[in-house]
Amino acid sequence: MIEDKTPQRTSLSQLGEFGLISHLTQNFKINQPSTLTGIGDDAAVLDFKDKKVVISTDLLVEGVHFDLAYMPLKHLGYKAVVVNLSDICAMNAKPTQITVSIAVSNRFPLEALEELYDGIALASKIYDVDVIGGDTTSSQKGLIISITAIGEAKEEELVYRNGANETDLLVVTGDIGAAYMGLQVLEREKQVFQVNPNNQPDLDAYTYLIERQLKPEARKDIKELLEALDLKPTSMIDVSDGLSSEIIHLCKNSSKGCNLYEDKLPLDPQLINACEEFNVDSTTIAINGGEDYELLFTIKMDDYDKIKANPNFTVIGHMTPESDGIHLITRANTKIPLKARGWNALKNE
Amino acid sequence: MIEDKTPQRTSLSQLGEFGLISHLTQNFKINQPSTLTGIGDDAAVLDFKDKKVVISTDLLVEGVHFDLAYMPLKHLGYKAVVVNLSDICAMNAKPTQITVSIAVSNRFPLEALEELYDGIALASKIYDVDVIGGDTTSSQKGLIISITAIGEAKEEELVYRNGANETDLLVVTGDIGAAYMGLQVLEREKQVFQVNPNNQPDLDAYTYLIERQLKPEARKDIKELLEALDLKPTSMIDVSDGLSSEIIHLCKNSSKGCNLYEDKLPLDPQLINACEEFNVDSTTIAINGGEDYELLFTIKMDDYDKIKANPNFTVIGHMTPESDGIHLITRANTKIPLKARGWNALKNE
Repeated sequence: MIEDKTPQRTSLSQLGEFGLISHLTQNFKINQPSTLTGIGDDAAVLDFKDKKVVISTDLLVEGVHFDLAYMPLKHLGYKAVVVNLSDICAMNAKPTQITVSIAVSNRFPLEALEELYDGIALASKIYDVDVIGGDTTSSQKGLIISITAIGEAKEEELVYRNGANETDLLVVTGDIGAAYMGLQVLEREKQVFQVNPNNQPDLDAYTYLIERQLKPEARKDIKELLEALDLKPTSMIDVSDGLSSEIIHLCKNSSKGCNLYEDKLPLDPQLINACEEFNVDSTTIAINGGEDYELLFTIKMDDYDKIKANPNFTVIGHMTPESDGIHLITRANTKIPLKARGWNALKNE
Repeated sequence: MIEDKTPQRTSLSQLGEFGLISHLTQNFKINQPSTLTGIGDDAAVLDFKDKKVVISTDLLVEGVHFDLAYMPLKHLGYKAVVVNLSDICAMNAKPTQITVSIAVSNRFPLEALEELYDGIALASKIYDVDVIGGDTTSSQKGLIISITAIGEAKEEELVYRNGANETDLLVVTGDIGAAYMGLQVLEREKQVFQVNPNNQPDLDAYTYLIERQLKPEARKDIKELLEALDLKPTSMIDVSDGLSSEIIHLCKNSSKGCNLYEDKLPLDPQLINACEEFNVDSTTIAINGGEDYELLFTIKMDDYDKIKANPNFTVIGHMTPESDGIHLITRANTKIPLKARGWNALKNE
């Protein structure tokens, strides 16, 4: 839970910029047939032939998006990659390459960056994406990670945010809210640690929640699952800022309304227990907590049979005419307008 | 010369993250046929058909890469784009798209970001590239800009760093060293301003140097020029870190040596005058100063006739066997090993 416990500390300035880049990237292998040239020239060269190219980018800032007090650097590197790949998956495309740029203050020794890059390398390996470029520089304060993810898809495979129809079903993969509660658990432990550094936390009851926060996964498997089911979503987005915020995006982009059913929300038992312990409403957490990196999509009603009883998917609502608005239907059958209270990087300053 | 003199100051938190992104990007138009979908979905979608895709990325950090005391935000936005496009030009490819991510501390009002985006929009327009995505978030300190540039080229057009032959000629476009001396002039004026804010600087003698520093251009025109001359370089790189550093990159990647001739270096008269005034050696500035964003390339000896007397190109040396090493041949005809003393972001901490 500590940023850097390694006794060895090599100053970054000993290596210089080019030395650092080649040291950190020396073990990156090229696997994707679309990568013609990776790191080492002015730019990487890719060849997607008849496929479409999908590109997304994210900037992660220490103190805004992550706290190194409880986020180990290897996990951070892994998560930084996953967060970006999730956007590619949300287009129903296959992630193929990433570029990784970092800015670090000189409080980070080389060994800390090696940890970070170990996580990046692990994610690249598991998700089979090539690291094809990047930039390494110093920052005035803290660590900043900028990743651009590139993917490929056939034109007919791509799913946008704007294709939902009025009677489509709203489906989410996996379960939601756990990553946010994992963050609450970690924040509490950080405070306990600050009061009593000798306290040994017992986190057994929260292992799933913490894993969802520290080591989330992008749903790269969903594209293949949908193909196997011969099912193409009409619209899709990933759940990064919070379910309500993402639903509103799909509705606005598709000019549709939506009814979301509280009793359908897929919640892990650990989440329910933790919400009771923290005395917070699990529905609030599930619809406003972010960072689940599950996929949210709409399908035609006729396709319902293809996913029913499939443990990967939960139907949580249905689309409506735009004029009906966007609502949460509670367990008590009351209709509440859904608002985006998702995580907002700029309001959190 | 002041970061923000506008009386209007709109707090970023009033808009929120999504509001800010859509406000800043609302005027970006899509022009490139390869851009199918730009901003507004999880990822942009591009189609390069039979062309190869070229990708490069750069991270610019306030206090490391730029100083807002003399860098107006509009110029900074323009330069941030140009720096990245230069890498695409250095592959002999055509820039087509960029993504722009920024992290800002809350000391920046909305109006400051609008200035920055005005510069980004201007560069996008002049260089005919589409802004297809990005991320906007807060930083703990200062302004951070991360840009990924995307370009396209036919396979046979691409020029890498590793293709130089033993007897090839070494050619540079434009002139070099001016951007670095422009920075020295601006640094001096900043110090004068700090001592006496009422001092009115007379910068007429340095207009070219300052323009090269504050508003550099990427040599997008060179690809077309070379095509018109039916000339394909054997290797190419852009001059961002300094001529000596780039020559060493070309030599190492091509496993060749090089002789660079001091008396051939193309220097602007303003540069020569400023070097005399600042009592610095113009050759040292020309080979170690960075940020010229000219192109450095090698051509076969037989192609010399195609570029001789062309004002865009200067032959500054020739390649040699690797065992001969990399040398500067001075005006006094002495041979000095060339070392990379280029700007190093990590050593400058």
